Amino acid sequence: MTEKGEKNSFGERARTRFFGDADRLCGAFESADGTARFGYREWRRSEGGGGGRAALLLGGEVIEKAAVNFSAVRGCFSEEFASRIPGAGGDGRFFATGVSVIVHPRSPRLPTMHMNVRFLETTRWWFGGGADITPMRPRGEWGGMSSVDYFRGALRGLCETHEGAGDWPRFSDWCDRYFWLSHRGETRGAGGIFFDVMGVDEGSEVVISSWEGGFGFVCGLVDVFIGCIGEILCGGGEWSEEERAEQLRRRGRYVEFNLLHDRGTRFGLETGGDVDAILSSLPPTASWDT
Amino acid sequence: MTEKGEKNSFGERARTRFFGDADRLCGAFESADGTARFGYREWRRSEGGGGGRAALLLGGEVIEKAAVNFSAVRGCFSEEFASRIPGAGGDGRFFATGVSVIVHPRSPRLPTMHMNVRFLETTRWWFGGGADITPMRPRGEWGGMSSVDYFRGALRGLCETHEGAGDWPRFSDWCDRYFWLSHRGETRGAGGIFFDVMGVDEGSEVVISSWEGGFGFVCGLVDVFIGCIGEILCGGGEWSEEERAEQLRRRGRYVEFNLLHDRGTRFGLETGGDVDAILSSLPPTASWDT
Repeated sequence: MTEKGEKNSFGERARTRFFGDADRLCGAFESADGTARFGYREWRRSEGGGGGRAALLLGGEVIEKAAVNFSAVRGCFSEEFASRIPGAGGDGRFFATGVSVIVHPRSPRLPTMHMNVRFLETTRWWFGGGADITPMRPRGEWGGMSSVDYFRGALRGLCETHEGAGDWPRFSDWCDRYFWLSHRGETRGAGGIFFDVMGVDEGSEVVISSWEGGFGFVCGLVDVFIGCIGEILCGGGEWSEEERAEQLRRRGRYVEFNLLHDRGTRFGLETGGDVDAILSSLPPTASWDT
Repeated sequence: MTEKGEKNSFGERARTRFFGDADRLCGAFESADGTARFGYREWRRSEGGGGGRAALLLGGEVIEKAAVNFSAVRGCFSEEFASRIPGAGGDGRFFATGVSVIVHPRSPRLPTMHMNVRFLETTRWWFGGGADITPMRPRGEWGGMSSVDYFRGALRGLCETHEGAGDWPRFSDWCDRYFWLSHRGETRGAGGIFFDVMGVDEGSEVVISSWEGGFGFVCGLVDVFIGCIGEILCGGGEWSEEERAEQLRRRGRYVEFNLLHDRGTRFGLETGGDVDAILSSLPPTASWDT
């Protein structure tokens, strides 16, 4: 086996691509906003190796907050943690690289969007990721929103052009089950896709025939998401105080999901990731006023 | 054994007193605000028995949000849950009653305050509770704040006048350890007291000699807290935009604690409590803008 994350290895190819993706994502957000610019902060992992780059855009005209986090870390899972990770039971060493994106637009008429792709290596390797969209209006008004239709349509198209990896019925259902606020009995948003442990091993959640097949799918996901940015983050128009209040309430639900339920957030905090980078998904402002 | 929560039982005495405490707490907040009034909502538990009353004050001149939650519920813990609860291993039936309070003042110069007392019965019984104060200013400025000194002094006095139950060095340390944001390596607030499993059984965390001793201590805690309301929630003065921004950031940390770490919140959500009542501790508005 090539050393995890070393030159020409699967890990190194994923890391290089994801770092470039982070730059392209930042560029797409800056174009959509028109004025605001990202600030960049590099961080190193205190234990193990590696680190990442947190990119944050705040207070734009169109975008109130956007975060683009790239990371590539290596280390050794704690015994308790390793037992829950595929292929880490006997040998807890791992390499993980990924890019994670969130955008909270200023206008309550524009949806919050999120995307994440990741590649993990233990004694096995696999891809995971997803993308979902969350309108900031009362749930009863989500049906037939053009941004939701556009977003879901783009992801459906992605799945259908990557037949060996993508599976729209399964991944969209997985999204609804993953982004689930069990304490409220409702989904976080209006859907998208979610998938995990996509690999060539028989025990994988999603069995693919080759590394290239999985890599092509996650790279395609980034491209499709970038295409959605310019298309969806425009035309926010004028809005009422009531629409703003509802937006802040919906953002409150977003916070509830990320802190109460999101496994990615817990994974990050439990493996000594950068706290501010992990929590940069939280909205710029949220309210609980009912 | 008297049926749990029945007339003249320990449970019934605690429930009656806590319900009256909830009314007195609401009255004290309304007096401190001067204009705003509480709205009341009763809820029933879908499984098991009992319910509670959620009282919420929003948008006052002094108080931006205050919540006073009374509950008295009976039921049966799930097997997995029961194993973590004293005296519930063999027989999962329980009765629990308590009152929980939070206040988020409008002025960034006034602290957020929280208090909770509870009485639980399984095959054993015990009291638990606590109170803590959280300034909304940068941590470096917390030392020597008169509201913090007043609050801590009042709780210290309470412990010292209830020698058989209260223990200031231990309970104030317990508070700092309980309200601990492990992911940031910092306490939630500037201290107070916390205690749990205060009972007559030998295995109790806090061994007391009689039910009356514990009951007197928790009733005293409510009284001391009520005394702090009028004393601390005044003189908020004028404040700058910068002070408001810092307040919203500190409230963000409050949200992080309550959703990531608070065992009370998880207990409530896992035992089918009223979601809006449980999450009414969350601030009216919070921000994550760094």
